[in-house]
Amino acid sequence: MNIAAAQSGGPTCAINASLAGIFSEAKMNKSINKVYGSLNGIEGIINERLIDMNDVLRSYDDMELLKRTPSTVLGSCRFKLPSYEEDSSVYEKITQVFEKYEIGAFFYMGGNDSMDTVCKLSRYFKDKNIDIMVIGIPKTIDNDLKHTDHTPGFGSAAKYLAVTLQEITRDSAVYNVPSVTIVEIMGRDAGWLTASSCVLHANDEESPHLIYLPEADFSDDKIIADIKDQLKRSNSVVVAVSEGVTSGDTYAAEEFQSGKADAFGHSYLSGIGKYLEKLVEERIGCKVRSIELNVMQRCSSHMASKTDIDEAFRIGSEGVKAAVAGKTGVMMAFVRTSNEPYFCSVTAVDANEVANQEKKLPHEWINDEGNNVRDEAIDYFLPLIQGELNPYMKNGVPVHMKLELEEDFDGED
Amino acid sequence: MNIAAAQSGGPTCAINASLAGIFSEAKMNKSINKVYGSLNGIEGIINERLIDMNDVLRSYDDMELLKRTPSTVLGSCRFKLPSYEEDSSVYEKITQVFEKYEIGAFFYMGGNDSMDTVCKLSRYFKDKNIDIMVIGIPKTIDNDLKHTDHTPGFGSAAKYLAVTLQEITRDSAVYNVPSVTIVEIMGRDAGWLTASSCVLHANDEESPHLIYLPEADFSDDKIIADIKDQLKRSNSVVVAVSEGVTSGDTYAAEEFQSGKADAFGHSYLSGIGKYLEKLVEERIGCKVRSIELNVMQRCSSHMASKTDIDEAFRIGSEGVKAAVAGKTGVMMAFVRTSNEPYFCSVTAVDANEVANQEKKLPHEWINDEGNNVRDEAIDYFLPLIQGELNPYMKNGVPVHMKLELEEDFDGED
Repeated sequence: MNIAAAQSGGPTCAINASLAGIFSEAKMNKSINKVYGSLNGIEGIINERLIDMNDVLRSYDDMELLKRTPSTVLGSCRFKLPSYEEDSSVYEKITQVFEKYEIGAFFYMGGNDSMDTVCKLSRYFKDKNIDIMVIGIPKTIDNDLKHTDHTPGFGSAAKYLAVTLQEITRDSAVYNVPSVTIVEIMGRDAGWLTASSCVLHANDEESPHLIYLPEADFSDDKIIADIKDQLKRSNSVVVAVSEGVTSGDTYAAEEFQSGKADAFGHSYLSGIGKYLEKLVEERIGCKVRSIELNVMQRCSSHMASKTDIDEAFRIGSEGVKAAVAGKTGVMMAFVRTSNEPYFCSVTAVDANEVANQEKKLPHEWINDEGNNVRDEAIDYFLPLIQGELNPYMKNGVPVHMKLELEEDFDGED
Repeated sequence: MNIAAAQSGGPTCAINASLAGIFSEAKMNKSINKVYGSLNGIEGIINERLIDMNDVLRSYDDMELLKRTPSTVLGSCRFKLPSYEEDSSVYEKITQVFEKYEIGAFFYMGGNDSMDTVCKLSRYFKDKNIDIMVIGIPKTIDNDLKHTDHTPGFGSAAKYLAVTLQEITRDSAVYNVPSVTIVEIMGRDAGWLTASSCVLHANDEESPHLIYLPEADFSDDKIIADIKDQLKRSNSVVVAVSEGVTSGDTYAAEEFQSGKADAFGHSYLSGIGKYLEKLVEERIGCKVRSIELNVMQRCSSHMASKTDIDEAFRIGSEGVKAAVAGKTGVMMAFVRTSNEPYFCSVTAVDANEVANQEKKLPHEWINDEGNNVRDEAIDYFLPLIQGELNPYMKNGVPVHMKLELEEDFDGED
């Protein structure tokens, strides 16, 4: 049989390593012939935009380069399948393409939305007695997937964040005046990434002095009181804040965001960082700066976690083994078997239990004041950011893998 | 004699390497006994906050760690000396401290404001027949100092920018829809750092597709026309824009900045990136994102240029040699003697010729359209970002050097 792999959702540093893992395992398995890459997720199947991965991965260097390339080399999509009872035409189209390319297993790398596709597609194939396995390979920097210890992509995001936050901490302390630095971190509904900044405490950094998460209550009065308190002990206070902190039912920055119109009359979508910068300026009056780490959190492969990249590769290859063993409608998942030394095994969980859900940071990891995390969090995060994968350099910058597609590319035929 | 060194102005990745270079050369020179570090620039002299660098740099590892630590390990200041004809009291205080600590040479690491201090202080000592040499050691990520080929700190900032911009480019291209990504880069009056993003073109990246500099004319109509034109050729357009682009006499974003008041009635200091994001949204209507690289441009030592760090070390040590040879009132400077292979010699230039001035990007390096740079720019920038200096890692993040000062520290006595 042949197999097909596709990437979906937001980019990470590790999703290409999972593709490399799928390819590698397939090449070692005699029952698998070709590995197709589907361009722009499931849309590449529907539109028949498939490439033969043998044409892309021709050497050891190609494989290593793919592992060192951030974002999705095959492109991504945000496509939600309708239920097949409502509209079966897209399912029929997918089946037709899979049959044409003799695809016996499909691997979908993505987050909880992508697992919805894994569920729907595998259920359709089962119901129609079509012998195609569908396997979900997790990835998200948000680390919010249920039934897995953590998600590929998260460790690299956490490592980039820790490294950068430490450098920002050095930068913020140069002048001999009280200052506050607010760093806004991705994570709309779950605070995993923001909380992971606590790893710096393992190296005797006091920064981040304060950590605010969507899982804890948040208010303007509270953060101002907390910062004032920290300024008594430190001249230079660094605050890690999740973009999704809420006070009650609304995002904290929402009132601020909707309150102002820009030059074009649109409401001004500024984030929590800018909001808090203004708040500190107004209510404390010291030197204050806000920093938004933006997409660099998900694409900074030059500082990827080797643990993360290795695990992303491994979970991809384990996915192929699961498909060959006849599993379908599952997501591959990590089970932490030991923390010192750190080991994870890989298992398959029902994708239905993961799709469209999210896993929050445990409440017991957050301190009573709701402005920092406990040591259990450090123990959990630390193994995930270990090790570095040196980039391949050319002219002083890392080399990335890029597909060279013909302009009017629309599939093999 | 003893010597003293101080750091001033904004942080860079390389200024601590210059301190290491000063210390290293002093330790090899029999005429020099102690090396003092002045805390928070010239203020540390005035307030007698001096530390013996022997207590800080005790081993090879300490020296290497200092070179790998961003920002200013001694702290910085923004202190402008009055002319001594107006107010000589501060000069007398400085002289008194220098005499107490038997300091025969003072090294001031900084940008064009710091060179003003070098000029004033050296002139005072000359006029008063005081035998203390004053040497300027350049540093600035802005690369805008006259009479030197480039400045320490710039190469590392340029390398971080290139590496990050390439990753952002990968990230921006994942979805199969037209998109524009605007990256705002530091440089209020000179476009060196923004222009340096052109090094990616040497690796066959089309990104950045457009580069806008303070040295070229800029208008809303022009950038919109340029972006529309690029979108015909590329689905994903990346724009590098200096924070200091101007249309006529005003900063382009100024009208936008002053036009709106925030929740507290203050004007909203948003940068050019956000301004252009809104402009593209309004006038083109495609997917658009703006990214501000913020202080990460000057403190990301985990991706420092080895060329930059090595040169910063060398220019510090050459400064000591110049002082021993009786030079004063000078800034050490690079002269590029060869580009292929790249070599620079170090010379001493009159600090008067550097102080309070700035060097702009040559107009002939900018293309006719004013939206990109020519190959001469690539040839200039490329050697400055070569090589990497692997960080010392602990628990998955780089180790930095931190001074451990007693809380009530106020000098040696």
